[in-house]
Amino acid sequence: MADTITYLTTTRFGSGAVELLPQELAELGIRKPLLVTDPGLAALPLFGRVRGLLPAEHAVFAETPANPTEAAVDQAFDAYRHAVCDGLVALGGGSAMDLAKAVALRATHAGVLAEYALIEGGAGRIGPVSPLIAVPTTSGTGSEVGRGALITLRDGRKLALISQHLIPARAVCDPELTLGLPPLLTAATGMDALTHCIETFLSPRYNPPADAIALDGAARVMRFLPRAVAEGGDREARSEMMMAALQGGLTFQKGLGAVHGLSHALGAIKDPVLHHGTLNAVILPAVLRFNAPSVGDKYARLAAAMGLADGADLAAAIEALNLRLGLPDSLRAMGVTEAHRERAVAGALADHSTASNARPVGRAEYEALFDAALGL
Amino acid sequence: MADTITYLTTTRFGSGAVELLPQELAELGIRKPLLVTDPGLAALPLFGRVRGLLPAEHAVFAETPANPTEAAVDQAFDAYRHAVCDGLVALGGGSAMDLAKAVALRATHAGVLAEYALIEGGAGRIGPVSPLIAVPTTSGTGSEVGRGALITLRDGRKLALISQHLIPARAVCDPELTLGLPPLLTAATGMDALTHCIETFLSPRYNPPADAIALDGAARVMRFLPRAVAEGGDREARSEMMMAALQGGLTFQKGLGAVHGLSHALGAIKDPVLHHGTLNAVILPAVLRFNAPSVGDKYARLAAAMGLADGADLAAAIEALNLRLGLPDSLRAMGVTEAHRERAVAGALADHSTASNARPVGRAEYEALFDAALGL
Repeated sequence: MADTITYLTTTRFGSGAVELLPQELAELGIRKPLLVTDPGLAALPLFGRVRGLLPAEHAVFAETPANPTEAAVDQAFDAYRHAVCDGLVALGGGSAMDLAKAVALRATHAGVLAEYALIEGGAGRIGPVSPLIAVPTTSGTGSEVGRGALITLRDGRKLALISQHLIPARAVCDPELTLGLPPLLTAATGMDALTHCIETFLSPRYNPPADAIALDGAARVMRFLPRAVAEGGDREARSEMMMAALQGGLTFQKGLGAVHGLSHALGAIKDPVLHHGTLNAVILPAVLRFNAPSVGDKYARLAAAMGLADGADLAAAIEALNLRLGLPDSLRAMGVTEAHRERAVAGALADHSTASNARPVGRAEYEALFDAALGL
Repeated sequence: MADTITYLTTTRFGSGAVELLPQELAELGIRKPLLVTDPGLAALPLFGRVRGLLPAEHAVFAETPANPTEAAVDQAFDAYRHAVCDGLVALGGGSAMDLAKAVALRATHAGVLAEYALIEGGAGRIGPVSPLIAVPTTSGTGSEVGRGALITLRDGRKLALISQHLIPARAVCDPELTLGLPPLLTAATGMDALTHCIETFLSPRYNPPADAIALDGAARVMRFLPRAVAEGGDREARSEMMMAALQGGLTFQKGLGAVHGLSHALGAIKDPVLHHGTLNAVILPAVLRFNAPSVGDKYARLAAAMGLADGADLAAAIEALNLRLGLPDSLRAMGVTEAHRERAVAGALADHSTASNARPVGRAEYEALFDAALGL
């Protein structure tokens, strides 16, 4: 029913894996979990099914916003504390998982979230947290095996909490849970997985095992994302995309790049609310063109793995894929305007992903990247 | 100086990484380590250099035999206990690392080793053990990131202790330490790494991240092992081979196959003492030919990754590589005779690696494999 894959986390992977929840909870000694999810999922039959797999005494926080905020973390933590929970189950996409990680941190660490942000030097202050089981319902984020949580603070900054202690104690990856995901969300989250594989592969940090996983994940997305978008009930494509997302998450340790620098910054905007995966898909071609002089033979290796023709232009191939998947072709088409420029650039410059971009990137470069992605 | 690579273990990788030992010991809170090594290494300047990096109060066990035995584990544990050590540093190849793992287990668990053997159902009885820093001086075993220790018991069986708790707390991989490794030992240990990558890739268990790492590791061995054997001072080749060995070790979780089933059994023989890597190199072609009907497109994928010509015979390519590297062409050339047949087959049938061979293998199949590898 489920294969066990262990790297830094332990993953149960396969159709029906969600049925393992009672066993996983028991193994981790969780007797009263807080179930963290979002309003959309709470309206689906899956929500009741998962609740039925939890101990009768569990609590629920179903108000995860599209991009998790400090205020929502506080609310969820109140629910956790009030019910005297001893662990968490996150059901959803990256937002629910990241929010649950932040609650696991709050439940075990004094003070406010900002103290633990990577950019504030907080990584070393994060010790063991409450046990968390991540149950992804999209194939993209990789947060189910990642050590990071991105939270928008009250002061408007979108900051990363990053620590090995934030890796979920278990990831339960059941591709059946993604069968009903609408085409556009399938496309956007799938492009998130592809961006993870590409940006980590391009990161100059030395980590051949991560490179091998990233190349394989990128190949998997190219092969199966169009199928998953065209026919949501394609079980093989759904399973392969969940694996590609997992592979992207396993490579985070190499660091991401300028695509994520910008998409984290834009994801902190309240109006319009911008989808992380869609942002990555739209920004990726511009960053690929910018990075080209600094990547050695990596574009050729990516293109070969991704099944592109010899000498194919990688950025153009991503644009063609976005078009085929029905994704927007520019930030402007997503509702972003010149008015967001300064905030996007300032946020990107302060983002932890910037340090591992393939080519050094400063203010002028980020401004040019923003303009290119805006579609001027 | 050293890159940090974290999957289930944390690896410091790079030239000069051994200088990080004081920092790693401090991070793990080890104040009085037992240094485990073998008589050959104890005669080299490296031994004194490593001792100089340890706290003044450390103990030494330098009597690791070529294939670690229960008796040697007991001696080393006596040294550990007598000196009131609180951790271990293993300096050497797979034998020193496996022996140190067994000592870490003995130091924290009651009873005899056999109680904890995988084949005796002992995996679940292994809890946290004493912290171990593995410093490989060969590029092959992968034990520095592996969860297993192979020990020959007093009753003659070579049994595997397998648990996530046996993964060294740190691997310190410094390719400079392998610069002086003689050509034949470089070849034999390098073929061990290649066999790990090939056998885990062929294992039918589902684990795409491990498959990707294994393919990449196999490609690395093909490209750099001949260079490391021909010119021991080739720093790039030495570094790439240390990475290939690490990659092989990261894939152990998929399980090995019939090559290791036989080589574990033959490694338990006292006379002649047979080198594990050489055994794998010599047995691999026969098992590849046997497995061929059960591997789908995997030989083609391996051949492509390894840079072989389209349609090349994988088993023949391994034989050609063995010849080029100066390795024996048969078990007979290593001193094995028909008299060892029954013991080899019985040991292989009882070995934990047998269950994950690509093609089911029973007594008759193992007998035929032994005969083929013997060179009848």
